[in-house]
Amino acid sequence: MRHFRLIVQYDGTDYCGFQVQPGVPTIQQEIEQALETVLNERIRIRGASRTDAGVHALGQVVKVVTGRPIPADGLVRSLNDVLPDAVCVTRAERVPASFHPQYDAQCKQYCYHILNRPLPSPFRGRYSWHVTAPLDIGSIQQAAVHLTGRHDFSAFEAAGSSAKDKQRTLSDLSCRREGHTIKITAECDGFLYKMMRIIVGTLVEVGLGRMHSSRIADILASKDRTAAGPTAPAHGLWLVQVRYGTQN
Amino acid sequence: MRHFRLIVQYDGTDYCGFQVQPGVPTIQQEIEQALETVLNERIRIRGASRTDAGVHALGQVVKVVTGRPIPADGLVRSLNDVLPDAVCVTRAERVPASFHPQYDAQCKQYCYHILNRPLPSPFRGRYSWHVTAPLDIGSIQQAAVHLTGRHDFSAFEAAGSSAKDKQRTLSDLSCRREGHTIKITAECDGFLYKMMRIIVGTLVEVGLGRMHSSRIADILASKDRTAAGPTAPAHGLWLVQVRYGTQN
Repeated sequence: MRHFRLIVQYDGTDYCGFQVQPGVPTIQQEIEQALETVLNERIRIRGASRTDAGVHALGQVVKVVTGRPIPADGLVRSLNDVLPDAVCVTRAERVPASFHPQYDAQCKQYCYHILNRPLPSPFRGRYSWHVTAPLDIGSIQQAAVHLTGRHDFSAFEAAGSSAKDKQRTLSDLSCRREGHTIKITAECDGFLYKMMRIIVGTLVEVGLGRMHSSRIADILASKDRTAAGPTAPAHGLWLVQVRYGTQN
Repeated sequence: MRHFRLIVQYDGTDYCGFQVQPGVPTIQQEIEQALETVLNERIRIRGASRTDAGVHALGQVVKVVTGRPIPADGLVRSLNDVLPDAVCVTRAERVPASFHPQYDAQCKQYCYHILNRPLPSPFRGRYSWHVTAPLDIGSIQQAAVHLTGRHDFSAFEAAGSSAKDKQRTLSDLSCRREGHTIKITAECDGFLYKMMRIIVGTLVEVGLGRMHSSRIADILASKDRTAAGPTAPAHGLWLVQVRYGTQN
């Protein structure tokens, strides 16, 4: 058997998330269908991250196991020939059989895009949250300092998760303005359910002046989801990359 | 009556062009519907350019005449509140009653985006033509020199046009690379039917080495559409701006 790690990009707009669900279009289904066309084999893939409906990816990681003797670059080309325009494989490489895209991930990086100006944009609207009132980057950055580090992130987790341990290390949380776009980037050893979107929703409350950055510590300590801000919409969220240890 | 000039942006992907046609979605229909909602008046608008299905706009110009005493900035806000995400008004200003968005236009600027690399992109695929083989910018630029200036552009016009005079002044035609994207920009006092897309299709033939740049003069002289290259796909084309004289 050949074991591959694929790097996959997708525009999540028209999909009900990564993971296969009966009767609705998903990214996993598109990739599995493309693999079946290319390899003439039914393959169940595994992804590093089960991104939600509407979330985009620049660097989702997928593991594929096949009995076919296809080379990595041939797999990339063949898959891109049959995948729909919204999904693209940027790289494939052989990995050991033991490689697990989710459990072996050491760190994931997400980026959230906010279009911060009164006018909407037909082109950026698919890929960013439109916040019309001006956001104060300085106070968002102050709030981000309080979130960075190892904490119990229960207050930043949506209901419906099975994760027992809520301790996570948010190794980086930064916010920068590029023209009218504000980008909030986060690196974490494992995001809880909707954690990134709740972090962004909370930071936007701070940026709008509705919440003071000093409240973040209390919100973390409360472990209470209702203490944090709202969940930012899915379409501004991008899975940028998944990092693995050197042996993978 | 109040006469307004609106600057309109749109993602043309899901539309059958600018101009109203029965039974299919068009940009004009979206704007007229939004105007009816906002002004409670049925208004027939005029656009500077009848962009084709799939073509995008950063600066389409539309004339609106209304009996309602709405201020320009209120019109922008109200329209953007009701327009679909794919269409946005960026500016409105009062103009004289005599202003005609099409006949008064002195110059239009289009830009064509080509994604020039082997890999497709889920994000740029909607907005650019994916050409996988490497394009030689130098020979495209040489060919562009031959097209610039006042010429009979019959060879670069698709069938189905009613324009009698095929003489046009292409005041600028430039080509530059930005990373994996090649942008071809053209300014002309009036583009013939599909002229920009045929110019791009021909320049890509040159860039691929299938046609020598010195053949452009012969193609112009032939006045024969079949002498030029293919029509580039609509989804790479952007109407950037329409320029008017100082009195408008």
